[in-house]
Amino acid sequence: MTLQNDLLLRAAKQEKVERTPVWVMRQAGRILAEYRAVRSSVSGFIELVSTPELAAEVTIQPVDILGVDAAIIFSDILVVPEAMGLKYEMIEKRGPLFPKTIQTQQDVAQLSSSPEALHYVTDAIKLTKKELNGRVPLIGFAGAPWTIFAYMVEGSGSKTFSKPRRMLYTDPVLSHTLLEKITDTTIQYLKAQINAGADIVQLFDSWAGILKPAHYKTFAVPYLKKIADAITEVPLTIFAKDAYFAREWISELDCQVVGMDWNMNVEETKQITNGKTLQGNLDPCVLYGSFDDIKKHTVKMLDEYKGIHHIANLGHGVYPDIDPDKVKCFIDTIKEYS
Amino acid sequence: MTLQNDLLLRAAKQEKVERTPVWVMRQAGRILAEYRAVRSSVSGFIELVSTPELAAEVTIQPVDILGVDAAIIFSDILVVPEAMGLKYEMIEKRGPLFPKTIQTQQDVAQLSSSPEALHYVTDAIKLTKKELNGRVPLIGFAGAPWTIFAYMVEGSGSKTFSKPRRMLYTDPVLSHTLLEKITDTTIQYLKAQINAGADIVQLFDSWAGILKPAHYKTFAVPYLKKIADAITEVPLTIFAKDAYFAREWISELDCQVVGMDWNMNVEETKQITNGKTLQGNLDPCVLYGSFDDIKKHTVKMLDEYKGIHHIANLGHGVYPDIDPDKVKCFIDTIKEYS
Repeated sequence: MTLQNDLLLRAAKQEKVERTPVWVMRQAGRILAEYRAVRSSVSGFIELVSTPELAAEVTIQPVDILGVDAAIIFSDILVVPEAMGLKYEMIEKRGPLFPKTIQTQQDVAQLSSSPEALHYVTDAIKLTKKELNGRVPLIGFAGAPWTIFAYMVEGSGSKTFSKPRRMLYTDPVLSHTLLEKITDTTIQYLKAQINAGADIVQLFDSWAGILKPAHYKTFAVPYLKKIADAITEVPLTIFAKDAYFAREWISELDCQVVGMDWNMNVEETKQITNGKTLQGNLDPCVLYGSFDDIKKHTVKMLDEYKGIHHIANLGHGVYPDIDPDKVKCFIDTIKEYS
Repeated sequence: MTLQNDLLLRAAKQEKVERTPVWVMRQAGRILAEYRAVRSSVSGFIELVSTPELAAEVTIQPVDILGVDAAIIFSDILVVPEAMGLKYEMIEKRGPLFPKTIQTQQDVAQLSSSPEALHYVTDAIKLTKKELNGRVPLIGFAGAPWTIFAYMVEGSGSKTFSKPRRMLYTDPVLSHTLLEKITDTTIQYLKAQINAGADIVQLFDSWAGILKPAHYKTFAVPYLKKIADAITEVPLTIFAKDAYFAREWISELDCQVVGMDWNMNVEETKQITNGKTLQGNLDPCVLYGSFDDIKKHTVKMLDEYKGIHHIANLGHGVYPDIDPDKVKCFIDTIKEYS
């Protein structure tokens, strides 16, 4: 089906666009009353993620309500460890918890490397595509191997992720075995998303910034490369949060878009990313400001990205207590001024 | 009193040293059984911090047990907001909590800008100096103004510190008023520490890395500068964790030492820090490894710092579950190979 609005795909492929496309990380979720209504009809976050009809519904909400140029499938990066055999719980106000973690080669051997269990995601993608009916592209996604590894070894969120970082030092062989298995599963999973209809896919390396550069080069980049080489069907975005030192390495991979957090200087990033399309990077806190201030900061950001292919976004997920009208102001400003 | 070991001070002042001095962030604390014995004799962390005899005792423990080249006074950066009028509690496994936070100009006006309440810290410094009897220098410290501001506005630790970051956008005037007051208090507090006997002082900007560079330049650097200009009696170290973008700005200030976290590339940092003494930066996770691996990584780090004045340290505080013998291996390796 031909897309009515393919701005995002054209920007990713470095083709001409009439204006800058825009979407917002975590656009489907807690900021919308319509989301909270759906969320309160189920027992928990994980039930919502694993029910295709509901996942499709909340995926489309921001397209209708906020007017974004792309939908992103409502899911979680932790469905991959779950499909591989590590069930997780989502503890209210605390985050994810894995009762079982990976410590030994035997633990790794017991993991599945098939993402077949994730048919609920591909079903949600198919439903979403049907209901979107070509209005905007649909973004698929997965966690980057290092970030998934970090959760599988730590067993929860953490300020230091000292257990997975420890493993990189104490057992590099085990680390590579696990990273390899996560990578293989992720490639299959992303390809399944693409087969189901995802028009572009994004890797979230949320904990990239906690590694020292030498470790990121050894334990993250080769697996990003493997995924980038395997995903040839649609454009690929890589977003390595806080990993300022990794931008050059990522831009050498066969991916199309480099994601930027709000700490990263746009001018400097342009110079070291080899002409890749850049995605980002308004500080999410700008959306706490007045409508006038949001416009001012958004226009300033657009100016910074002049001369390069750009997909407008925040530098991280939108914060849960942001007024949706403020998000809409950001989106409308991009549409008006770019 | 003449110091028997003044390696750290000479390295800070860019004077010749026979070998690289070494200390470890959080060297006094949970890793030592001797600390835990003292800690279990009191009701909580805050009682320990505010009892000079006990604070002095745990300050000196790592000098005796680990053989570090400096003691750092056992305290907390949050004693400053407390002295200004915001009491905090330390919640087990959750961290600090301020029942009252700063939201308005009136809140700021009610704050004290005198650190007089902190006589327990200066008393602890005097006692420590007496008991150290010139063996090694004593490091005093405070939180940097932005980090103290972040806690006073957020009221607790946070992954995003969205409330203080929001205030920078929505009320820059209030933000500057509060930062100014924190800075004035901090200068008085550091001078009181120096008068009591601190031989060098360090500013910890623990949440520096969460700001976008333009905000760090506006809301952090001018206050660091004010402190650096005021502290003329002893050397000053500034450690802005995760703020890779701030290293150049910090090196332009009248401070002597720039602290580095484990993400920061040594070679690159050398090039942009104007010949300042550098402090850091072994990844704390290295200390989970074998003794052989610790030696190998430590020697490699020493090599990286060749050609520049260097104070050896970890890139962050030592993790609580690290074996003290591993910390000692790090320290002994510095002494042996530098």
